[in-house]
Amino acid sequence: MRRKELVVDDVPDPTPRPGQVLVRTLACGICGSDLHALQHGHLMVEMSEQAGPTPEGMPTAHIMDLSRDVVMGHEFVAEVIEVGENVGNSKVGDMIVSMPMTFDERGLFPIGYSNEYPGGYGELMALSDMLSIRVPNGLSAEHAALTEPMAVGVHAVNKSRIQQGEAAVVLGCGPVGLAVIADLSRKGIEPIIAADFSAKRRELASTLGAHEVVDPRVEPAVDAWRRVDARHASRNLVIYEAVGVPGMIDAAIAAAPRNARILVVGVCMQQDTFRPMLAIGREIALQFVLGYDPIEFGETLQAIAEGELVAAPMITGHVGIDGVPQAFSDLGDPEAHAKILVVPSTQ
Amino acid sequence: MRRKELVVDDVPDPTPRPGQVLVRTLACGICGSDLHALQHGHLMVEMSEQAGPTPEGMPTAHIMDLSRDVVMGHEFVAEVIEVGENVGNSKVGDMIVSMPMTFDERGLFPIGYSNEYPGGYGELMALSDMLSIRVPNGLSAEHAALTEPMAVGVHAVNKSRIQQGEAAVVLGCGPVGLAVIADLSRKGIEPIIAADFSAKRRELASTLGAHEVVDPRVEPAVDAWRRVDARHASRNLVIYEAVGVPGMIDAAIAAAPRNARILVVGVCMQQDTFRPMLAIGREIALQFVLGYDPIEFGETLQAIAEGELVAAPMITGHVGIDGVPQAFSDLGDPEAHAKILVVPSTQ
Repeated sequence: MRRKELVVDDVPDPTPRPGQVLVRTLACGICGSDLHALQHGHLMVEMSEQAGPTPEGMPTAHIMDLSRDVVMGHEFVAEVIEVGENVGNSKVGDMIVSMPMTFDERGLFPIGYSNEYPGGYGELMALSDMLSIRVPNGLSAEHAALTEPMAVGVHAVNKSRIQQGEAAVVLGCGPVGLAVIADLSRKGIEPIIAADFSAKRRELASTLGAHEVVDPRVEPAVDAWRRVDARHASRNLVIYEAVGVPGMIDAAIAAAPRNARILVVGVCMQQDTFRPMLAIGREIALQFVLGYDPIEFGETLQAIAEGELVAAPMITGHVGIDGVPQAFSDLGDPEAHAKILVVPSTQ
Repeated sequence: MRRKELVVDDVPDPTPRPGQVLVRTLACGICGSDLHALQHGHLMVEMSEQAGPTPEGMPTAHIMDLSRDVVMGHEFVAEVIEVGENVGNSKVGDMIVSMPMTFDERGLFPIGYSNEYPGGYGELMALSDMLSIRVPNGLSAEHAALTEPMAVGVHAVNKSRIQQGEAAVVLGCGPVGLAVIADLSRKGIEPIIAADFSAKRRELASTLGAHEVVDPRVEPAVDAWRRVDARHASRNLVIYEAVGVPGMIDAAIAAAPRNARILVVGVCMQQDTFRPMLAIGREIALQFVLGYDPIEFGETLQAIAEGELVAAPMITGHVGIDGVPQAFSDLGDPEAHAKILVVPSTQ
């Protein structure tokens, strides 16, 4: 990402510092946040700056400078090719994933949104050994690359505290909504109702475990829930808002039944409007979520490896590094793609 | 309330239907919602209408018609003077409180916002026997009249699931904020930080249990919490938003630390704006609350009667029925009043 454009160019190789490993990227998913960062990176920077200084005792978090190059890509799996000093976890040849951040003596850098540490759309990365997790034997690189986006779904489902006996509605079946659906399905939640304008996305939602899928232009998702769930009148509903455009939170509130919990998983960067009275009258809870914690990240990898968390159908394409700009554009069509993996070894 | 004005006039006496008792109002608190209803009653009606038809199997909820008279007043204590058919709970002479609603064969009527059933700013009411609770022996009528507003605080605190070890910030020390403070204090929460522009309200907040009170023009409440609570960095914060004007929810989100829960107790009737990104980045939870349930209502009365829930300092004045219009106006000055009780026997 160079001055709001994607360019393919040679940049200096990263060098592993103490506690880091040098890795070769095997695969890296393209995330909607990266499409967003390309257009609205300044908003991401502003938000990070508004978060204020790093709390005392925590490493300084470094915010990217958009006037300098950023090698994006934070959904990666990689092979260790060199270990730095003080590395005790990873060995050369290991296939690893990692939460997308690296520490060094200067502080904390978000991989994929950093000027210092290149992300997974490049061939080489420097990762923190202490954050790296070896991919369990037998799991393919491309499935391991889904750990990060699936962990977002696992975290949202955990934060919702949904229990068997409660129903779920998922608004939006992009990769985040699909990850939520896959984890709800793993946890035996029934029914799961999913809504998306795109037929292709609805088909993926069904594949990943949604019991009913609807085009919200034809039938609102909460209406579909009432239609298919004979016990709807006595069941709690949890709504996962995974669209992230202005107005969606208000629409979810307006549609929600009494005592519904709404998980805001979609990221709306703009100011938004809503009607508090609608939420008050039905005692709605809104839980905003972001990311995942290290335990959830590790559990997600394990659940994918054990076949409990089905993620693979989300992968709809592969490109080499030269294909990344085109892939960003292709991802604009939900009928064509959900998750495209960048595989640097592909030409 | 007659055509958006308060008038004192003679209206027909209510007649108890089967299952109802006729009562003489002993005292009735003036609620901020009534001040609001006078100006913006049409919004309340619209909101009730937007809630849609009554769910199947539930009694029809009747919405007031603003072109007809409404005798307001829903924070009442009363003496039973006549019992209708099929009354097995109350006896003539009992001092009772009740959740502010009455049932009859036509459905459910909100007392104080109904054309059919007069509220506690009048001398006589018809109440449902099954919703009436006898005031425990020895509790004064005026303290019993605080059951309803205090139950609002008890419910908000219950919904917040706050636990000892967590800290509380209360934004706004009107009757709702004060009720929240009193219940937090009863539950041993520490510290409780309260914010209000009014010195009188801050003094009441201290009396009811706030450990630190601030004028938010001088020091934001969350800053005050960090100042007084040595353990703030490792403690969860629960924020009770009890102001209910546009912008307060966004301001609470902007001030909230990571993982804070914000209880929206203030009722903002207008459309509001907020910045979802601020809530997402810190994984804020917003819980909207309204009212209380019958168990909470009964528990609140009991807790007041046993001296556990200190409510009495909130009472800042008494008026007779003729004084209600002036009292509505006096309540506009937070330095002068918090809760004025209407005592019909006063001249």
